[in-house]
Amino acid sequence: MKILIDGMGGDNAPDIVVEGAIMATDYTDEELCILGREDDIRNLLQKQGYDGDQITVINATEEIENDESPVRAIRRKKDSSIVRALYMLKDGDGDVFISAGSTGALLAGGHLILGCIDGIERPALATVYPIIGKEPSLLLDAGANVECKPHHLLQFAYMGSLYMEEVIGRENPTVGLVSNGVEQGKGSLLTKETYKLLDQTSLNFMGNLEARDVPLGIADVIVTDGFTGNVILKLSEGLALTIMRELKYRFTSSNIAKLGAAMLKSKLYSLKQDVDYKEYGGAPILGLNKALLKMHGSSDGYAVMRTILKSIPYVKEDVVGKISEAVKKQDELGGQGELGERGELKR
Amino acid sequence: MKILIDGMGGDNAPDIVVEGAIMATDYTDEELCILGREDDIRNLLQKQGYDGDQITVINATEEIENDESPVRAIRRKKDSSIVRALYMLKDGDGDVFISAGSTGALLAGGHLILGCIDGIERPALATVYPIIGKEPSLLLDAGANVECKPHHLLQFAYMGSLYMEEVIGRENPTVGLVSNGVEQGKGSLLTKETYKLLDQTSLNFMGNLEARDVPLGIADVIVTDGFTGNVILKLSEGLALTIMRELKYRFTSSNIAKLGAAMLKSKLYSLKQDVDYKEYGGAPILGLNKALLKMHGSSDGYAVMRTILKSIPYVKEDVVGKISEAVKKQDELGGQGELGERGELKR
Repeated sequence: MKILIDGMGGDNAPDIVVEGAIMATDYTDEELCILGREDDIRNLLQKQGYDGDQITVINATEEIENDESPVRAIRRKKDSSIVRALYMLKDGDGDVFISAGSTGALLAGGHLILGCIDGIERPALATVYPIIGKEPSLLLDAGANVECKPHHLLQFAYMGSLYMEEVIGRENPTVGLVSNGVEQGKGSLLTKETYKLLDQTSLNFMGNLEARDVPLGIADVIVTDGFTGNVILKLSEGLALTIMRELKYRFTSSNIAKLGAAMLKSKLYSLKQDVDYKEYGGAPILGLNKALLKMHGSSDGYAVMRTILKSIPYVKEDVVGKISEAVKKQDELGGQGELGERGELKR
Repeated sequence: MKILIDGMGGDNAPDIVVEGAIMATDYTDEELCILGREDDIRNLLQKQGYDGDQITVINATEEIENDESPVRAIRRKKDSSIVRALYMLKDGDGDVFISAGSTGALLAGGHLILGCIDGIERPALATVYPIIGKEPSLLLDAGANVECKPHHLLQFAYMGSLYMEEVIGRENPTVGLVSNGVEQGKGSLLTKETYKLLDQTSLNFMGNLEARDVPLGIADVIVTDGFTGNVILKLSEGLALTIMRELKYRFTSSNIAKLGAAMLKSKLYSLKQDVDYKEYGGAPILGLNKALLKMHGSSDGYAVMRTILKSIPYVKEDVVGKISEAVKKQDELGGQGELGERGELKR
């Protein structure tokens, strides 16, 4: 297996990418190929004391910025790490691509260069949502598709469920639909129609869930449109940060408080880690013909390493193939199956 | 002024309603009229040692439950506290109605019995969103209108801005639109169109805001559709509760932690209050021809008292009249004004 790693995207590239790749060599023997400015990357590898041949380097000189038009950037910057990596994936010269670069460029590039799995209309960004004291949930769409139709959400549910089962190892994962009330009748036009579709599938669909229950880990797979998914992620991040900052402020506001806080230091620190909605790395872009993982822009070396390791079951369990099979199986049934023709449920 | 108070809705009626009304008599001389089962309420008043004449009682025997169809309940239960109070408001025999009862019934009843202000199409539920260390924001719509059009959101912005200025006393309040990115081009079809409308008004519109910045109090008035508003409120409530519970759990998990936590008790308690997204009482239902305030179902006597006191400037500053004037002024301009004909902006 050849794991392609973007040596350009994110706040701390290429340093942390090199650091994470070197760390990962302790846990895997797969080839790790970093794409970026070759000289810089080779220098960093040397500086960090790496002299093996498991990590290879592919030269790419152009960088796609977060504020560029993604489609234009993909079309023009042929020598960017993202465009090079996507073509390598397409040509079979790589099995998975990991990047902390522009989400828009990854989505647009994935769409244009790799294409969607037959029957899937929209790739979705699936994000790991941390749950305190429990295994995390998977939230999708986390922001790739602002406007969605019911059958898109149905496809997200299938893809998320497969990823959760095959990569994260959750058995028969529960699927919940974000709405403004748990009753079936509650919701927007979108969620009410989606409910009906999900209710007829073989998925472990538990019905609507309220946003209040998302942080409790009420469902393994949380399905929503990209607008709401973005609101859920960003609000969780903002509110958790605000509360933790306020704790710190209050706990240092008097001498006795400081003393008390000192006794709780490890507990506070571990909680801060647990509610760090920003740091959980490695969001798969599901629905493309190849495996893609998006890392957070501020990932550190440890996050890069974790994402590299997570990409291995993603490829080995052939999640892309399994999504494709799931869709095809339905097509073989003459479009009468769960995902139906063009991904739409026939009723 | 006559303040009508629902002696039926909520988890703890009529006890806490009576308690809150008695507490309020220490701060205001306005007439407080409780609607509910007269004998029960008179017994409670007596039991709690009240023998004045500031608090009056109107008998109402039917109760509207949260799980009833709101429209049906309003039509059938003529002797419910909600229906009686709304007719009293309509007939000028009361100036404002405060209720912890079914939000659906209050919205439906408000719509059917009181009607909307001319030019306003949809009443909105506006909720106070607590901000740690700062004055709270006002979030609307908090759940009354799941499907919205751009001009509805424009009207919400106007109404929220007026309420914030006249009742809460925030000068020239800033208005932010919830979206999935701060740039103007970001958002759903709904938010992109709404942005254009808001950008042409005299409101203190600051543009899009990301959900991450909502808990920081980035805008005085946070405008969004009822589905997203519900997600923001419920998620904030759920996540804050989860974090505070987890703190408590970790802080009692060893003897040294318990000792440390004891030193921080007051700080922890005050933070718990500050992030209690559930307890902030008194959400106005804006856009109706009369003043209505919805309290949380689990309000205690103190929350009831606070809502009663908040209702006074709501009436005195004639927010309903001011919203009506704002709409009319635009109509006088031949529908060319900001809110335009039928509330739609002419471009």
